Amino acid sequence: MVIRPWGYGIWELIQRQLDDQIRRRGHQNVYFPLFIPISYLQKEAEHVEGFAKEMAVVTHRRLESVDGRLVPSGELQEPLVVRPTSETLFGESLAEWIQSYRDLPVKLNQWANVVRWEMRPRVFLRTTEFLWQEGHTAHAIAEEAMEETLQMHRMYQEFAEQWLAIPVIPGEKPPSERFPGALRTFTIEAMMQDGRALQAGTSHYLGQNFARAAGIEFLDADGERRLAYTTSWGVSTRLIGAVIMSHGDDDGLSLPPTIAPQQVVVIPLVRGTEADAVVLEYARRVADVIEAGARTHDPVRVMLDDGQHRPVDKKWKWIKRGVPLLVEVGARDAEAGVVSFRSRLDPHRQRQLSFDRFPEAVTEELASVQSGLFERARKRTWDMVRRDVRTRADAERFLAEQRGFVLAGWCGSPVCEVALKPQGVTIRCLPTDEEIPDRRCLICGAPAEHPAVFGLSY
Amino acid sequence: MVIRPWGYGIWELIQRQLDDQIRRRGHQNVYFPLFIPISYLQKEAEHVEGFAKEMAVVTHRRLESVDGRLVPSGELQEPLVVRPTSETLFGESLAEWIQSYRDLPVKLNQWANVVRWEMRPRVFLRTTEFLWQEGHTAHAIAEEAMEETLQMHRMYQEFAEQWLAIPVIPGEKPPSERFPGALRTFTIEAMMQDGRALQAGTSHYLGQNFARAAGIEFLDADGERRLAYTTSWGVSTRLIGAVIMSHGDDDGLSLPPTIAPQQVVVIPLVRGTEADAVVLEYARRVADVIEAGARTHDPVRVMLDDGQHRPVDKKWKWIKRGVPLLVEVGARDAEAGVVSFRSRLDPHRQRQLSFDRFPEAVTEELASVQSGLFERARKRTWDMVRRDVRTRADAERFLAEQRGFVLAGWCGSPVCEVALKPQGVTIRCLPTDEEIPDRRCLICGAPAEHPAVFGLSY
Repeated sequence: MVIRPWGYGIWELIQRQLDDQIRRRGHQNVYFPLFIPISYLQKEAEHVEGFAKEMAVVTHRRLESVDGRLVPSGELQEPLVVRPTSETLFGESLAEWIQSYRDLPVKLNQWANVVRWEMRPRVFLRTTEFLWQEGHTAHAIAEEAMEETLQMHRMYQEFAEQWLAIPVIPGEKPPSERFPGALRTFTIEAMMQDGRALQAGTSHYLGQNFARAAGIEFLDADGERRLAYTTSWGVSTRLIGAVIMSHGDDDGLSLPPTIAPQQVVVIPLVRGTEADAVVLEYARRVADVIEAGARTHDPVRVMLDDGQHRPVDKKWKWIKRGVPLLVEVGARDAEAGVVSFRSRLDPHRQRQLSFDRFPEAVTEELASVQSGLFERARKRTWDMVRRDVRTRADAERFLAEQRGFVLAGWCGSPVCEVALKPQGVTIRCLPTDEEIPDRRCLICGAPAEHPAVFGLSY
Repeated sequence: MVIRPWGYGIWELIQRQLDDQIRRRGHQNVYFPLFIPISYLQKEAEHVEGFAKEMAVVTHRRLESVDGRLVPSGELQEPLVVRPTSETLFGESLAEWIQSYRDLPVKLNQWANVVRWEMRPRVFLRTTEFLWQEGHTAHAIAEEAMEETLQMHRMYQEFAEQWLAIPVIPGEKPPSERFPGALRTFTIEAMMQDGRALQAGTSHYLGQNFARAAGIEFLDADGERRLAYTTSWGVSTRLIGAVIMSHGDDDGLSLPPTIAPQQVVVIPLVRGTEADAVVLEYARRVADVIEAGARTHDPVRVMLDDGQHRPVDKKWKWIKRGVPLLVEVGARDAEAGVVSFRSRLDPHRQRQLSFDRFPEAVTEELASVQSGLFERARKRTWDMVRRDVRTRADAERFLAEQRGFVLAGWCGSPVCEVALKPQGVTIRCLPTDEEIPDRRCLICGAPAEHPAVFGLSY
């Protein structure tokens, strides 16, 4: 997967915002190695089990030319895997760095690339290599580690909803969907337009499992040596896929202004005539006045597209790319002192404002695109969450034919948990905020322990 | 190599500043894959030749547990190398994206990790994996590509001197030191305190070599198909090593304020007595007033270290880490309304200012640390550049015994270029801005074609 400038610009904005939020909560950024010696992985058995199937393995440290063909050479004594995630590496270092309770908590974060071999890749959603953020923390007491796990889980929910305009259902993963080695995994699940679930960000309470494997011990205030409690949590470039699939429409991508590399694009409608100079000059003034206004209050990312392509091609290019606000400047606009613009919420309708009133309207229009996209996605999602499906047969029929989520009860048994797996249906999460009308298990009809969201997933 | 928060904070500041400068010059960030199929490398023969010795090779896509041991499994049909640099990957995509002269120039940049297997690693200077920025551009005409190469070369020089406070000698690499596949390579060479050279940033004019290998063609304005001209340029986490080794002294690291994660650290001298509350309160006021002043003009990164450790330990910790300005707040300071501080240029001397005057002095003091470090490094470097060494024997003696650079003539022949290589001495660059008094070749005595900097390197 090559991420081109527009897509990477989205990721950079996601990264900057999330990085600020993570730092504000007291975490520091670090960088750990790409390669993990196999022996590190071997230590946490359950963790290895979960990942063992899909790792890139480095076995040689050079290429040699043999009869004009390049072949691997210099076999390594111990093969290395390219990190699929870095719990084991952080564990080794934390064990070294932490001596006493005074050194705790340690709250670290890393922005990095990771690799999990994919046989059926899907752009942005499931790629062999992806970019992500992985937080790793260690705590003296279990409750604090649990609170950390939940705090980051809530941060992800807020970020998805407020920045990406994607409504999500927060909740806990059932046991079979937990991160390998975790005691509890929390997730935010988003629904794409086809009704499938996308796991958009997870937070793991690891208990003492990784601490035990790596030997993360500390001398407590009472003089006892104790194992630390650790957490990890991450989101990835998959979020770009979530944005595309949540907000896209027949005209292409729609971007929430918070993460649009350009929020306003101004296109001068030049026609190769003498009037062009006036049009260009006026278009530049419109772009300038938006930016000048921006400096005094909310920053606005605005761009004048004065490139060589035809204005109509530019227009569709920027609509397809999801620019929230598009301004087209023609000779008549310049003459009348007005600004003609389209909101990405309704790109087929052009509106007009006077030059003086426009800069102020920009902030409002951007806010309305942001909330409009969220509302549209929220309504669509909840329209596709069924609370009235009560039997396994009905659930199978609904999920096969109509798509969406079934919110129903689950008895808590491992058998019922995976009963619909042959059809690709899993419990996406045990939602935190939802009640169910019928407290019986969707699968077996026994009394339900939890409300559960059943759905197909990416 | 694990990069801990303080070191990574330095890298983040380097990254942010350099990223701004690269963008201002019209480049856009992208992300290309970590893995390169061997067949891509095979296309540019000279390039492969230069790198073939030191690449991490991925040969398997899974691990399997055999009798409780993890072993590589799922052998790949075509092995992949972990990118040592990405010219070949960018080449493949540029060939797809570029159709006509209207699409040119293309100016891209990537922040990424790369791997070059190191048998003798040295922290920050030569590590198997490192972080870097790699720019890749394509142009319709040779002169424009050459101008791009030189522009980025100059940008690196300014950055090293103005931001890192490291004086460098800019110049061109002689043929044997060029980037594999490049027609011309430009470098900035810094001298470390032991007199050895550190190559700190390179810019390559690749001519049409990579364009030919990857097929980067465009339809020119005259209807002809032509090959593009490409460039690449990069700096890496090696710059952190350059900073450490340029500015470090007997008391540890010294950081230029531009890249210091904290520019001012305030330590309350608490003693476990009743007076502590007053000291802490006053220390907080000092930190606040620096930050408040910062908001109205130059931003200052200030931190109150109210952690559990002993004040004297904190003091040495922050001096060792190179914090430019250290403030120690005791009960007497609070009483007298003064601020006692040390500049990292002279950490054994404490000075005092009144509370009211201090915030203003902070900006000046930081500026004086920045220029002081640069001047100190500049003087030391140029004191160790010898212009009066005229013979091969004298040069060998000087470089073996005293260390430093010999600035002398070179006739341009490949034989003289590598004559001192057995002693580890190479031509670091053909300096752009230096004249030599004696225009004869240091090695053979024939008329010199270029001034040249001879030195040992890291």
